[in-house]
Amino acid sequence: MARDERGVTPQSEDFSAWYNELVLKAELVDRGPVRGTMIMRPYGFGIWELLQADLDRRIKETGHVNAYFPLLIPESYMQREAEHVEGFSPELAVVTHAGGKELEEPLIIRPTSETIIGEAMSRWISSHRDLPLLLNQWANVVRWEMRPRLLLRTTEFLWQEGHTAHASADEAMTETMLATGFYRDLARDLAAMPVIAGEKTASERFAGAQRTFTIEGMMRDGRALQAGTSHYMGSNFARAFGIQYTGPDDTLQYCFTTSWGMSSRMVGGVVMTHGDDQGLVLPPGVAPYQIVIVPIGRGAAEAAATAAAQDLAGRLRGAGLRVHVDGRSHLSPGYKFNDWELRGVPVRLELGPRDLAAGTVLMARRLGEGKEAVSLDSAPARLSFELTAFQATLLQRATEFREQHTVQVQTWPEFVTAVASGWASALHCGSAECEADIKAETTATARCIPFDGEPDSGPCVRCGRPSDYGKRVLFGRSY
Amino acid sequence: MARDERGVTPQSEDFSAWYNELVLKAELVDRGPVRGTMIMRPYGFGIWELLQADLDRRIKETGHVNAYFPLLIPESYMQREAEHVEGFSPELAVVTHAGGKELEEPLIIRPTSETIIGEAMSRWISSHRDLPLLLNQWANVVRWEMRPRLLLRTTEFLWQEGHTAHASADEAMTETMLATGFYRDLARDLAAMPVIAGEKTASERFAGAQRTFTIEGMMRDGRALQAGTSHYMGSNFARAFGIQYTGPDDTLQYCFTTSWGMSSRMVGGVVMTHGDDQGLVLPPGVAPYQIVIVPIGRGAAEAAATAAAQDLAGRLRGAGLRVHVDGRSHLSPGYKFNDWELRGVPVRLELGPRDLAAGTVLMARRLGEGKEAVSLDSAPARLSFELTAFQATLLQRATEFREQHTVQVQTWPEFVTAVASGWASALHCGSAECEADIKAETTATARCIPFDGEPDSGPCVRCGRPSDYGKRVLFGRSY
Repeated sequence: MARDERGVTPQSEDFSAWYNELVLKAELVDRGPVRGTMIMRPYGFGIWELLQADLDRRIKETGHVNAYFPLLIPESYMQREAEHVEGFSPELAVVTHAGGKELEEPLIIRPTSETIIGEAMSRWISSHRDLPLLLNQWANVVRWEMRPRLLLRTTEFLWQEGHTAHASADEAMTETMLATGFYRDLARDLAAMPVIAGEKTASERFAGAQRTFTIEGMMRDGRALQAGTSHYMGSNFARAFGIQYTGPDDTLQYCFTTSWGMSSRMVGGVVMTHGDDQGLVLPPGVAPYQIVIVPIGRGAAEAAATAAAQDLAGRLRGAGLRVHVDGRSHLSPGYKFNDWELRGVPVRLELGPRDLAAGTVLMARRLGEGKEAVSLDSAPARLSFELTAFQATLLQRATEFREQHTVQVQTWPEFVTAVASGWASALHCGSAECEADIKAETTATARCIPFDGEPDSGPCVRCGRPSDYGKRVLFGRSY
Repeated sequence: MARDERGVTPQSEDFSAWYNELVLKAELVDRGPVRGTMIMRPYGFGIWELLQADLDRRIKETGHVNAYFPLLIPESYMQREAEHVEGFSPELAVVTHAGGKELEEPLIIRPTSETIIGEAMSRWISSHRDLPLLLNQWANVVRWEMRPRLLLRTTEFLWQEGHTAHASADEAMTETMLATGFYRDLARDLAAMPVIAGEKTASERFAGAQRTFTIEGMMRDGRALQAGTSHYMGSNFARAFGIQYTGPDDTLQYCFTTSWGMSSRMVGGVVMTHGDDQGLVLPPGVAPYQIVIVPIGRGAAEAAATAAAQDLAGRLRGAGLRVHVDGRSHLSPGYKFNDWELRGVPVRLELGPRDLAAGTVLMARRLGEGKEAVSLDSAPARLSFELTAFQATLLQRATEFREQHTVQVQTWPEFVTAVASGWASALHCGSAECEADIKAETTATARCIPFDGEPDSGPCVRCGRPSDYGKRVLFGRSY
């Protein structure tokens, strides 16, 4: 379908334009009135709610509890951890007036909550018996973005932020890895995103962290999207905020803390991992509607088809599927087919007089060729199977794409070629200056040192000095 | 138990001190670093999550969809609806700097979202086929409070705000009433709060609304808590923001809009409706732990009791109950009993060697006298029954309290006496000046004109002019 009908630039022509137009056209989001802000429309927010419900379950099942901390943070709090304030200062939004008066101390709208939660932890923790303290909150945060992009980098975004305190460094590291696992599993199981989990290099760490872990997904333009991060703080924040406990031996010790976050950016990751020229392609795990039924016919035939569609929808819902009947009678079936294709619904069912007479419904998959008649009787079992298969297909397709666009490079020219259209798996010396050189020349950055990388060593792909990390590093251009 | 042990002033001695101390001591909330802000601790947030899940279900079952709108609103938006800006101006928090620069236009942190959602609706609605538009969002809002009070009136609070647009005034009024019903049913069914639903008088209306409806709960000091409101805007906001549609007859019409909200204040309502000198009393519908099991014994006996408690907890959870095993072995059973009493857990179970030998567990209800042995085999069925009965008892007790403290008054002296310790049901002339006189003299305000009030008329209780509304008005002091 041509651009003028669909209203979206083809992905192959201009990926960035395709993305920006598609997320608006598919009604995932809209622009807010303030530059860089975004409205999550019901269809986009529905994807977020599905991600949220699944992650919230994982978080609670592992002993974490939800809480809620204030949006507004005294400016002085931000300054207690030196690296933290340095990292976030350029992005802060500041409240200077409230209740009709100028405030004595300006207030920061939280860009993240380590400081305000750290201060509370210092009051709540006194004994080793108070540990571990495993908190999580679902919240909005504000970071003033110079180059905003819908869903990926917005001035305000929604996320969860886990914040935990532990008696030992080991336990805190285990927690940091547990959270990385939440994100890897959520991305894979719900979003069909075959992300690579690994550690960030020192230059890519969170401001104030000793170690940062990440999941990185490959988008269909070959770029990397950081889709969740987990930070081991050591006792940096514990020292800055006085988070201490008395051990079993009656000595006063600093806690070890972690923080970890996953945001509404993941919705953008779903779009860019699976979408195509026809529009969104939603994995059933995050599709607000997994199945849309379009009744076909006019007049009495349409009424009969709509009644049958509602009946079928009820039976499919009974099988645990999310189903929508498109009853907009002023629109043609063709218009509806295109609309739901654009909106990425995994399976479309068409139900008209001939289907009804035959006791069947016509099934079209979002990625499949042609249509197939499915008996109404067996539809719930068959559709459950189709959705599971569709989810697996998307994960496999994305995994193959990632593998095809990841090159194990030996030389600098190979590196430059690889990061032009995907990722380079390269040996690196580990120096921040060398990473900066690579970025300056190619715009590619170290995405992560993958957990599952094979042992390897040799000269740095860029500067030739001996490699660090004992394995290869993934480099790519990112969002 | 004396104050020094429990740490909470008796309710009968000083209700306000009791409340402030209890919500902190029971770890529902903590104070935030900025004046008037609050941390919702896991135990308090757990109550909120239960209210939230139930209300979210009601909202979605009636065809509403969740979305998310930006926190930051251009100052100019607030000024488009004259009454709205007048009502909210004194409470606004203003962002003047962001990203290291002074902003060209100051931004308001949303105190409510009619303006920003109204602007979006004006872009999304064009035809009668786009109506009704039934949106809801769960969000934080900021209103600078001069007299902050934990949970009841905080500078930032959590709420949901429904915003809907309709083709006709009738349909919008039906929606307004539907939302009032959500709140009344939620308060009654989950929080065991026998609220009175009714309409606000003109002076108590939401800024910019044509009609405002409310649910009012009676707290145990006889004051009223407004626990949810629903507003019929007519076309005020539609005109201010240009929310228009083309009707089936091709004419351009203004929409009729509504908004409705329920907030974390409801958690404070639960505390003040049911709590007593011993602490919180939580209705099972909102209790994060409906049952706490305390294993009794030392050494091997404690280990056996804890194992049995875990086993029992698993069986009770299988019956859909929320159960916690208090395994803190450094604390005495007596300490734990007091702790869970303070925290309002509906039912406590004690499980020691003698109980185990007898195949029973000892049950103590939060409001009951004495303890009762319950056979382990029948525990799931018995406890389900006990919790249902406890919920009903609380609703009945609160209803009786409200009835005992609501007086149908004829004279001004009767009115003054009634509002000193509860509510007065009175005939009123309907004039705002007369309401202001009543407030000035007694601090009581018109809480609502109850939906289910009997037809009545006569002289105004205050000024003697003929009464308005065709029925009595509830007056009371409020929070």
